[in-house]
This record gives sequence, C-alpha cells and structure tokens, in this order.
Amino acid sequence: MINQQYKQMLQGKSVIRELSEYATSRGKEIGYDNVFDYSLGNPSVPCTQSFTDAMTDLLQNSDPVAIHGYSPSLGIESVRNCVADSLKRRFGVNYEGKHIFMTSGAAGAIAHAIRCVTKPGDKVLTFAPFFPEYNPYINHTGAVLKVVPANTENFQINFDAFEQMLTDKVMAVLINTPNNPSGIVYSPQTITKLADILRRKQIEFRHDIFLVSDEPYREIVFDGVEAPFVAKFYDNTITCYSFSKSLSLPGERIGYIAVNPKATDADIIPVICGQISRGIGHNCPPSIIQLAVSRVIDQTSDLSVYETNMNLIYNKLVDLGFTVVKPGGTFYIFPKALEDDSNSFCMKAKKYDLILVPSDGFGCPGYFRMAYCIDTEKVKRSLDVLEKFVREEYGVR
Amino acid sequence: MINQQYKQMLQGKSVIRELSEYATSRGKEIGYDNVFDYSLGNPSVPCTQSFTDAMTDLLQNSDPVAIHGYSPSLGIESVRNCVADSLKRRFGVNYEGKHIFMTSGAAGAIAHAIRCVTKPGDKVLTFAPFFPEYNPYINHTGAVLKVVPANTENFQINFDAFEQMLTDKVMAVLINTPNNPSGIVYSPQTITKLADILRRKQIEFRHDIFLVSDEPYREIVFDGVEAPFVAKFYDNTITCYSFSKSLSLPGERIGYIAVNPKATDADIIPVICGQISRGIGHNCPPSIIQLAVSRVIDQTSDLSVYETNMNLIYNKLVDLGFTVVKPGGTFYIFPKALEDDSNSFCMKAKKYDLILVPSDGFGCPGYFRMAYCIDTEKVKRSLDVLEKFVREEYGVR
Repeated sequence: MINQQYKQMLQGKSVIRELSEYATSRGKEIGYDNVFDYSLGNPSVPCTQSFTDAMTDLLQNSDPVAIHGYSPSLGIESVRNCVADSLKRRFGVNYEGKHIFMTSGAAGAIAHAIRCVTKPGDKVLTFAPFFPEYNPYINHTGAVLKVVPANTENFQINFDAFEQMLTDKVMAVLINTPNNPSGIVYSPQTITKLADILRRKQIEFRHDIFLVSDEPYREIVFDGVEAPFVAKFYDNTITCYSFSKSLSLPGERIGYIAVNPKATDADIIPVICGQISRGIGHNCPPSIIQLAVSRVIDQTSDLSVYETNMNLIYNKLVDLGFTVVKPGGTFYIFPKALEDDSNSFCMKAKKYDLILVPSDGFGCPGYFRMAYCIDTEKVKRSLDVLEKFVREEYGVR
Repeated sequence: MINQQYKQMLQGKSVIRELSEYATSRGKEIGYDNVFDYSLGNPSVPCTQSFTDAMTDLLQNSDPVAIHGYSPSLGIESVRNCVADSLKRRFGVNYEGKHIFMTSGAAGAIAHAIRCVTKPGDKVLTFAPFFPEYNPYINHTGAVLKVVPANTENFQINFDAFEQMLTDKVMAVLINTPNNPSGIVYSPQTITKLADILRRKQIEFRHDIFLVSDEPYREIVFDGVEAPFVAKFYDNTITCYSFSKSLSLPGERIGYIAVNPKATDADIIPVICGQISRGIGHNCPPSIIQLAVSRVIDQTSDLSVYETNMNLIYNKLVDLGFTVVKPGGTFYIFPKALEDDSNSFCMKAKKYDLILVPSDGFGCPGYFRMAYCIDTEKVKRSLDVLEKFVREEYGVR
C-alpha cells in the first residue's frame, strides 16, 4: 500500500510551482510575452561558453568509459581537489579534497548535511523568511525544522527570538545568505554575532551545534560587494553549494558540501555523507558534469542582468510607496504587500497577468516574492502593469 | 554530533570495493596488466557513438537555458513519453508517460519504489544470492530487508522458503533478473509461479504486495534469448531500470521507474516518488543526460564481449571441476568455491593476483563472484592463472 505520509504531501503542493504552471498555461492563451511571470527562480542567462566547450571536449577527446564511468561515491578525486583549491584560493580557508563531498545540487547537500549531524527528533533552526523546500529537506530526515521569526526591519537575524529558541535540542542551524526570498546578504556583524552565540551555547550545552550554510547565490551579489564567507566566522560550518545559479545549470544537479577543516570530525563528515548516499540511492552526481564543472571552477555566467533588473524593480516599488528592503544579491526581492493578506494581494495582481508569490510559505506573512530572473525588456514592460494594478486596486499615488 | 547510525556503517565497508582498491594498488606495483581484477561490475565497453553524438548535438545546437534548465521533478515530459513508448513497443504493456518516473539509476529507483510502497517496520523480501547494496537501499527507508535462502541447484527461486517467509508484514518483494551475482535469468515458469503466489497472498492478507523488479541487466542476455519482462506476469509490478549497463553510462546516474498501468494507484506512484525526491534532495536526474538518452532509447552498446567472456570462463571452470550454473545474462558468474570458506578461497586466489569476490555478502556462503566486464584478451590470460591456482592449492585435475 502506498505510504500515507507521502500521499498526504500531495495536498501540500508547492504554491510557487502552481503559480508557475498557471503562468505557463495563461501564456499559451494570451502569448507568453504578455504574462509577467515572477514566480520561479530559474536562471534566465545561459551557462558560459567555456562550460559548453568543456563538455564538448570531454565528449570528443576523452575515453567514454572513463568520463561516463562510476564516480567514487564521494565524488571524483580531481574534482574534489579542484573545489578545495578554489575555495582556499578565494576565501583563505584551508580546505583539502577530503573535506569536499560532491552532491546533486544544494538540495542534496542540505539533505545530506542534516542527516549527518542530527538524529531523528533533534531540532534544526532556520530564519524566516526561508525557502519553503527546507520543510521536506529537513523533516524527511527525521529532524524537526523550527523557524525563527523574521527581523522585518532589514531581514538580518532576529536575535532575541533566536536565543529563546536555541535550546539544548538544537543540533544544527540552517542559514541562507544571500537569501531566498529576501535577497538580503547577511552582514559580517550578523554572522559574527550568530557565531558568538553558537560558540557560547556549544559550551553551555556541551555538544556541537553545526551551522549549515546554504550558499547557491554566493556569486550573485550587487554593488561589487562580496558576500562574507560564512565558514570563516565559525568552525563547525558545513557549506552547501550548487552551481545551478552561478553557472546556470539547475537541471544538471551539481553542487558540493565543504566541511570546514576546523569542524569537529571534519575528515569523517564527507565519508559519512557517502554512507548516507548509499541509503537514498544517490550514489554520486553525474561524472561528466563533475568533470566539466571542475574545468570552469572559478567562472560564472554573466550575472549582471540580475542587478539591472533589481534596480529597475526596486526603484519602481519605492516610487509606488512600497515598503521594501533593497536586495544585496540573488534574483529575488521581497516587498511588503499593500494589504495584510498577501494571498489576496497576489490574486489581484494575477488579474493583471502579474505573477507574484505570496509570502506565507516563506514563514513571513504579508509580503510577496518576485523572482526577477527574466528579460530586462520584459521587466520594464511589467512595471507599467505593476503601476496600473496598484493604482486601480489600491489607489496609491 | 555525527549521527551514530551512519558512523557505524563505516565499519561495514563494501568487500567488493576493498578488493577493487587492492587490485588498483597492486596494479600500480606490478603493472595493471598482471592483475586479473574480477571484482567490480563496471562496464568495460564504451557507450554508443550515437549517445556521444546526441550529447554533442544538444550542446552545439540547443538553447543552453533549455537543456540545462530544471527538469520537472518527475522527469522531462518528452523523455517520460519516450520511455513509455519504448516499453510499450518492446514488451506490449500499455505504459503512458504518467507511469514513468526518471531516477538517478536503478539505485535511486529502488530506494524511491520501496519508500513509496512500505512504511517503517514493514518487511521486504529478496532472494539470495542478492546485490549487497540492497541492505542500505532498503533498510534506510525504515523497512526491513529479509533474505530468502538461495536455491543453489539452479539459482531460480527457493519457493518453499519463500512461502514460509511471506507473512502479512511483507509489503514488497524485490527481485533482480538477470541476476547479480549469479548471472541467472528467471524462467517464465519461475516468474509465473512467483506471481501466482503473490496474487494468492494479496487476497489472503487483503493488502497489495508490490513486486519491485530491478532490471539493469535486462539487455545483457545470452544465446539470443530475451529475458522475460516481469511486469507482464504481475500487475503490481514496479520496474526499476538503469541505462548504466546497457549504454555503459554508470557514472551519469540515469534510470527510471515504470509502474505497471494495471497496478494499484498506478497514476499516483510516480507523483509520490516526486514527493519522496523532495525529502532526499534528489529532485531529478541531470537534464541533458535525460534528453540524450531519450534520443538513443532502444539502442545498446556492443554487449557481445560479455557473452564471449562468459563462455571462456564457464568452459574453463567446468574443465577444472567447478560446480557452476551457466549464466543466461549479465557479466557475472557465481561458481562454488573449492572449500567451504569462500573467503579463504578468495584470499588464496589473491596470491595469484586473481581478484575474486567471496559470496558471504551476497547471502549465499561458499561461492564466489567473477565480474567479467574486462578485456577478452585478459580473460584468456587469466584462465591459465586460474588453472595454476587451482592445481597448486587444491590439486584438482
């Protein structure tokens, strides 16, 4: 008989995906150019030509048995070394290949990291607003995800609430900076304070508290500012990365776990991840994709369009009187809705073929998310529609 | 703190992998040509040129945002349809795209299928000799794997033992034909009898019993005989497939689940698998690999070398007086060792640089496995070494 736990999940379908499906079907009706679809975080820029060239070269000039053969379950050794070297060079943390575990994107990385450092019943804290898929990623491990309420002033951390919720049962804290959905980058002050509290509580509780840092947007930052590298602030950090956004390869499922060399059991955690893989049938990410990514390790797609789009949208939102914190990165923005019920707000926008995502699922009601990984030309056209919608429905300005 | 369950698994390292690692290091000492490594089931023939061409064409002539974009979590629609059409055409079962779920190889397929049709504490039966990785694949779902003792006469099914073990608590039966490690193909009579028993017990127990059929070796069959297609014999069949062996792509992690359209909840099972994916961070197999495989769906690599190797080895083993059942497919053979303790037998062989895998892990002590996915020329050279080993250690013939 079908497992009822999963059958029940069917009721909890992803709001984001439903809106995206609506946008697609609406596009078939009225032309996709006329639907302003801000629902999905799917990169809109192509991968680098160098990635395509690397793939082609591997296919044309390497032994097929070698490039398509089984990868060791922790990842191909040369690829793990390459990732470690890149992180060391860029951020000055002394990773070696043994600290790297290759994963199926950041999703696989998080699911493995949490299974590794918790047991069923343990608590994991994350901070609102947060990516709703953290719920299945964490809760299916048997650990329990608890959400610290948002600091809506600037979407940094609500430390009062955090300290109250950080009990002896918490074995891991999951953060995401640059953040989906707020677009905020945690400041060095925020990360320092977070690390100080965790260090203090580790001593008080006499057990490790791991910081699982979900960083798929690390390279999408604005104003030429680099996002602080979280592992530099706290020894027990497990960095979860995906090449999905930086290289525009979301479908190729390639990412990694990097365990801070100073973490407790740093050498063992990647090996444990290999054991976890055996149980979920993951085994390893695709061999040829691992090899190709390692050849373009420090490169990114041309990500500048996201900053262009952000500025256009941010300025318009401010003009229209929205309360909104300016994103420091990602391709998301998270303004306050013009009524308390953001579902109602987004339903009204939908009538204008403006597809916005209400914020309840992100753990921060009353806001909405726009994923602006779309053509700049379309962003520009959408702003007139946004203005029309706001004036007609709310009479603002 | 590190999850102790996984930490303990580190003690239970794979014997196959340890032998393979030994063979590699020994190869570095004395030259790899002089080590006769029958340990690993890693295909030795290249993928088809058509697969390489399909990959290259996709990279050169398609929109990178499309080919590297997120796949729907159940797989790319055109790929699912293509798999369904191929199965329908080849085996006459009325699959539609909605019955297909794309997976990371057969490992991912089995792990998803078992999670789908069991709940923690349920029992799953499989038949010795069996692939040892079934232990983590099944036991990590929370279900409990129980092994029906082997029918060592011909490595078909030991039905007496099976019927005794088939209690009300059994929700799924996992079979693997053509079989790793025995190389045996279940006969139509075996599958018919298995299906009859399952149908009878479903009525008696008043619940479904799913047959999970692991078929990565489906296309590697000898004497021009086709392996019976298990789903044709039993409605509640979930077929787990991988392109790893047929197309020599083990590292690219691509396979599928095909749910018999007549199975209970046939339309829902693939959707449930999508929900399970959310919890383990799998999400989908790599997009470009899905697309490329669908372009060569009915093709295979040149698999004839495996039959050539099998005949050479089988004849030599018979000459040397081994008790051995002739394989009907795969690239494995599973002879009886020349002493009761097959570990001791394989340790002695190792002194001759002949790497054989003892059978305890396969649930059938006293035998050994040879994976003959190696060059035919090397197989020929190895047979003299085998003869020398057997004469010197056991004085046979």
